[in-house]
Amino acid sequence: MNASLESLPERVRALVGQGVDAIDTPALVVDLDAANRNLQRMAEFAERHNVRLRPHAKMHKSAAFAHMQLQAGAVGLCTQTVAEAEALAAGGANDLFISNQVVAPAKLHRVAALAHLLKGRGGRLAIAVDCEGGIERLAQAMRLTNAAIDVFVEVDIGQGRCGVAPGAAVVDLVRTLAARAPSLRYAGLHAYQGGAQHLRSVAERRAAIDRGAEQLRATRALLDAAELAPPLITGAGTGTFAHEAASGLWGEIQPGSFLFMDADYARNQRDPAQPPFEHALFVKSQVISVAAGHAVCDAGHKSHAIDSGGPTVHPLPGQPPLATRNGGDEATILTPLESGGELPALPALGDTVWLIPGHCDPTVNLHNQLIAVRGGLQDGRVEAVVPVLARGVW
Amino acid sequence: MNASLESLPERVRALVGQGVDAIDTPALVVDLDAANRNLQRMAEFAERHNVRLRPHAKMHKSAAFAHMQLQAGAVGLCTQTVAEAEALAAGGANDLFISNQVVAPAKLHRVAALAHLLKGRGGRLAIAVDCEGGIERLAQAMRLTNAAIDVFVEVDIGQGRCGVAPGAAVVDLVRTLAARAPSLRYAGLHAYQGGAQHLRSVAERRAAIDRGAEQLRATRALLDAAELAPPLITGAGTGTFAHEAASGLWGEIQPGSFLFMDADYARNQRDPAQPPFEHALFVKSQVISVAAGHAVCDAGHKSHAIDSGGPTVHPLPGQPPLATRNGGDEATILTPLESGGELPALPALGDTVWLIPGHCDPTVNLHNQLIAVRGGLQDGRVEAVVPVLARGVW
Repeated sequence: MNASLESLPERVRALVGQGVDAIDTPALVVDLDAANRNLQRMAEFAERHNVRLRPHAKMHKSAAFAHMQLQAGAVGLCTQTVAEAEALAAGGANDLFISNQVVAPAKLHRVAALAHLLKGRGGRLAIAVDCEGGIERLAQAMRLTNAAIDVFVEVDIGQGRCGVAPGAAVVDLVRTLAARAPSLRYAGLHAYQGGAQHLRSVAERRAAIDRGAEQLRATRALLDAAELAPPLITGAGTGTFAHEAASGLWGEIQPGSFLFMDADYARNQRDPAQPPFEHALFVKSQVISVAAGHAVCDAGHKSHAIDSGGPTVHPLPGQPPLATRNGGDEATILTPLESGGELPALPALGDTVWLIPGHCDPTVNLHNQLIAVRGGLQDGRVEAVVPVLARGVW
Repeated sequence: MNASLESLPERVRALVGQGVDAIDTPALVVDLDAANRNLQRMAEFAERHNVRLRPHAKMHKSAAFAHMQLQAGAVGLCTQTVAEAEALAAGGANDLFISNQVVAPAKLHRVAALAHLLKGRGGRLAIAVDCEGGIERLAQAMRLTNAAIDVFVEVDIGQGRCGVAPGAAVVDLVRTLAARAPSLRYAGLHAYQGGAQHLRSVAERRAAIDRGAEQLRATRALLDAAELAPPLITGAGTGTFAHEAASGLWGEIQPGSFLFMDADYARNQRDPAQPPFEHALFVKSQVISVAAGHAVCDAGHKSHAIDSGGPTVHPLPGQPPLATRNGGDEATILTPLESGGELPALPALGDTVWLIPGHCDPTVNLHNQLIAVRGGLQDGRVEAVVPVLARGVW
């Protein structure tokens, strides 16, 4: 094969100071005013309910938004991969939790090196484990450094993905972990019920977290009896964090999506126990074709993830209400949603259409840049072009 | 916001010459032997049926695979965006067709510049249009160059996305286009029935293409009568190309997925009119957690697109047959598919699991590198680390 490793220079989709009109399409745009309001509401919630806020950075994948959250009172950030943690550390974050299992020796050496780096800067690295083999592999990799790593035992409270089953198995695993001190420091339990976040009714979400909390409470009682009380229980997402916070079990919450909010979370019934959040993440697109009953814009599922459903259209004043249909990698098909009254049924060739992605996290992952605007989607200006440093699977 | 445009250095997931075992996970791996066999079969088909082969590069997004196809007899490549065309041109390709509508002035200036560049190198650029506004905008942008651009009128033969309706409207549009000569050169019709590619039975796919061909034949008769006969009709994909080739209408076919083949195309009933294609694209992943009834590997929908369904598992000898369930951005959940006989029900912690992505094109878009291996997934070696130059929406 004739292949080189060279890449092309990154194309800047907008310049700082330009109006929103000048942003090339398709582009991922963050409404900074809305994101800031979301963040302030979440920070106030955490303070009022006396829980630590450790937002999940797998959502925004950017050091700039990590710092915005730290400045608002977050104690640190979660990441889901080693690479995300490395990227945030390169971007200046010092207190990171890899809320996932890592078992490859090559990756665990990176974990150990990162623990060393963060310790040297006065910060710390934490990671999850869910089996003896994971503890053994991690301990092996940590032998080359004198830095310690905080370790949370992941407990499966209903998601059915990673995590040890609640009950006696947790006690056994914590005992194995505690025996690895001081290089592995038992930091507590990680318990995230991902399957509960998008249950549509408040009652369903609360019931799912209540079931998980019951298992977790019984597990904590076993740990207390074994004199292995967890220093901290961490978990929770944007759909349920008020219930974890109210349980008296979780001392730290990990929501991610609240900052940008997506169309799928907007489909959840509003929980009065949680503050309201606004859409702050949009794909700016342009109409490239108009037919008799539909129009086509230039943003497809290469611009917005569709794992949690397609995007919705965010109409600006004067624009017709539109439904969306999957048009492939590079296009979304727009059809009239309802009678628009005196509005035209469809946008015209060249018009701007703002899409609200179905799911923030994988949408951000599709883009190299977030265009951060201040002053709204109509009259705003570009305040920053934010690199998505932790993008990809590297 | 405190944000810089700097990016992190790319992490290489494998080195040329290393064994397949050494490839870090998750990684996108191409079996070069299988890809080569697919390409040879397609090239032979095109030659035997006397159609030009212009593979769609939105599938692999790489200059290296573009050159592999050109060396096998392809007349050029299709792209779906200006950026993809720019990337392939930067990688040395000289004959490109942007099979999509482009209407933003900023992008059309790039189109004009690219037409100029390719002309200067002895190549050519083509693009699609589907309305008078599109022709007007393109002509405007071409005023700054003396290079001509080939223009295909896109006809909607059933996909319901872009394209002018078959019949008299095509004649009107071709007339408008022909009046813009010589800077806009009427090159023919672009007619792609994307909706037909994944109809499961051969009969359904053939019927869908037959319906489109009927409309196209009538449209061509109108054009012939108006002395606007199309120099070429181009279109077709991996699911149906034999029918377009047999119709006597299409002189050029644009399949993309045949080179790598995905799980969704494998769900199509095999068409005896087409050569067989093998899976050549895989995600290498690793088991990071094992529970009572399932295991979890480290490749989620950030590693493989799920717009056309989840991945399937490609078991190597000795591995249990497994079903997959969506485990989120960074994980896939593996469950026993059936009794594995004497095999274990689940893989063990640390085991390698090879996934076959549901859909090639957006899967490749998630990755910065394709790891090209020779000699198979068990004993093969890395022959090249191929940059996905045309990745993203830049």
